[in-house]
Amino acid sequence: MPGVICGRFSRPIERVGLYVPGGTAVLPSTALMLGVPAMVAGCEKIVLASPPRSDGSISPEIVYIAQKVGAESIVLAGGAQAVAAMAYGTESVSKVDKILGPGNQFVTAAKMHVSNDTNAGVSIDMPAGPSEVLVVADKDANPAFVASDLLSQAEHGVDSQVILLTVDLSEAQLKAIEDEVHNQAMALPRVDIVRGSIKHSVTVTVKTIEDAMRISNDYAPEHLILQVKDAAKVVDKVVNAGSVFIGEWTPESVGDYSAGVNHSLPTYGFAKQYSGVNLASFMKHITCSNLTSEGLRNVGSAVMQLAGVEELHAHKRAVEIRLKWLDEQKQ
Amino acid sequence: MPGVICGRFSRPIERVGLYVPGGTAVLPSTALMLGVPAMVAGCEKIVLASPPRSDGSISPEIVYIAQKVGAESIVLAGGAQAVAAMAYGTESVSKVDKILGPGNQFVTAAKMHVSNDTNAGVSIDMPAGPSEVLVVADKDANPAFVASDLLSQAEHGVDSQVILLTVDLSEAQLKAIEDEVHNQAMALPRVDIVRGSIKHSVTVTVKTIEDAMRISNDYAPEHLILQVKDAAKVVDKVVNAGSVFIGEWTPESVGDYSAGVNHSLPTYGFAKQYSGVNLASFMKHITCSNLTSEGLRNVGSAVMQLAGVEELHAHKRAVEIRLKWLDEQKQ
Repeated sequence: MPGVICGRFSRPIERVGLYVPGGTAVLPSTALMLGVPAMVAGCEKIVLASPPRSDGSISPEIVYIAQKVGAESIVLAGGAQAVAAMAYGTESVSKVDKILGPGNQFVTAAKMHVSNDTNAGVSIDMPAGPSEVLVVADKDANPAFVASDLLSQAEHGVDSQVILLTVDLSEAQLKAIEDEVHNQAMALPRVDIVRGSIKHSVTVTVKTIEDAMRISNDYAPEHLILQVKDAAKVVDKVVNAGSVFIGEWTPESVGDYSAGVNHSLPTYGFAKQYSGVNLASFMKHITCSNLTSEGLRNVGSAVMQLAGVEELHAHKRAVEIRLKWLDEQKQ
Repeated sequence: MPGVICGRFSRPIERVGLYVPGGTAVLPSTALMLGVPAMVAGCEKIVLASPPRSDGSISPEIVYIAQKVGAESIVLAGGAQAVAAMAYGTESVSKVDKILGPGNQFVTAAKMHVSNDTNAGVSIDMPAGPSEVLVVADKDANPAFVASDLLSQAEHGVDSQVILLTVDLSEAQLKAIEDEVHNQAMALPRVDIVRGSIKHSVTVTVKTIEDAMRISNDYAPEHLILQVKDAAKVVDKVVNAGSVFIGEWTPESVGDYSAGVNHSLPTYGFAKQYSGVNLASFMKHITCSNLTSEGLRNVGSAVMQLAGVEELHAHKRAVEIRLKWLDEQKQ
């Protein structure tokens, strides 16, 4: 429409809080997955929170990454208290506009709580639960590779969800995978955690890849591994998933560390409506409109008619008063 | 990195619920603002909810739009009950994956509640509160136009926020705006609502446009109207706002109806972290990685080193086992 320009521009979210879980292991990769897009987006203030180690110190890997991404400060705290400090601000902790990053059930509950407190004025990346993998394997899959991917997920914690979806496998092939899981698990230092999560893992057997993808899309896994023939073509059938790993040379762990994708992903079926953390998670869009007097003449009658239907007379008048002024100028 | 392909693809959110407020007025424009991007995104199931009129019927304008955007059904209910029905599903109402659209405080509270219920598995567009406008006006502004924009916002409801930010105006100029507000308000059918919201409207006077934009960015208005000299250049200084209306020929009402921008926008300061409803609100991104054996060789050592630091041995083994297999094949 002549004289009507509209569009949008983006701006970084000014102040972001990045939660990097600690607990049993140090997770510098999570600091990278959150810190790098925050830095690239141009966030003005980056606050990083992570629980201290048992001696009260923080791991040097986390400090190094915080420095590299230009973090303003590191909050040496974990759990709900770290989330609350960043949501509301304290004497020593800066208030932020958005909190991102995975965490245990207390961290998640706190994030969800503050995102609904309009007095906090803070948003979150997504509700996150325990990590999940769904591996789709057919006759072409290497049992050792399939087993190693199932175990990668299983070692995250006893609440990890591990699902194997087999397509038209023989009993012998299925047993080969089970044997590999057992043998590889025995060699792992975290065998106890693995035992806990493997106990409630599930194997589902279907006849066709179509059936497999229907189940996968209903479940909406955080990680979807396709160890099937022509895996790249199967991606067309993926509707709900956090991140997809295609073919036998793409274990989930490459995505966790260095394939180029982000590992902060939606769990618990939330891949149906949320995307994983990405550059857009650190930005917002602002729309803008710029009309000339000609533009206002062009859309004016439509605006006045719709405002009339909605009985918003002042809305109508805002256009009317301007058009009248223009008409008077012409005379 | 040779042999490493990563990227992302997008998919529509399959089932969306669109809330179109009713109450005192019929709001077909809101049905359009939500329904058109849902249709363009390709959402499989569109459910539209809107409170019936006092005789139990629904306005033909809403039915027409629902049909045009391919809605599956219209839920003849408003308030928290409509939100709950779409979040959980009932015998007659389809469960949806995401609920979008503005509403009163009950609708908003219900949306926030269900988005935090992991059993519902539903997300929302944003927490939305009463509508707001901030008008920045300098000596170049036409008092009648400024007043008409303030009143457009004021007629939305007694809880509407109306803020006038004047830049280096004389007493006489300020009075001219006030007189226009008074005179124009008298001519409006909704004068009572307008009186209610104008009562708690605020005028802030500053000396420079820099000061004005600092205040505006702190407030993060849903609607920002720039009736100032070289308004288009001032947009560079906008950091937090829902939608910007540039110059004297761009009243907010054109954005509400036909400038091309969406009118479902973040309020209550949430423009600091949320964008208004747009096509992306109806989609999610899924990342994917696809490595060849060469690609796995290229990133393998980095993955194994990071997994080692994080003591995630199964993650390391998933790579190791594949590289070993490759080495054995070569021999």
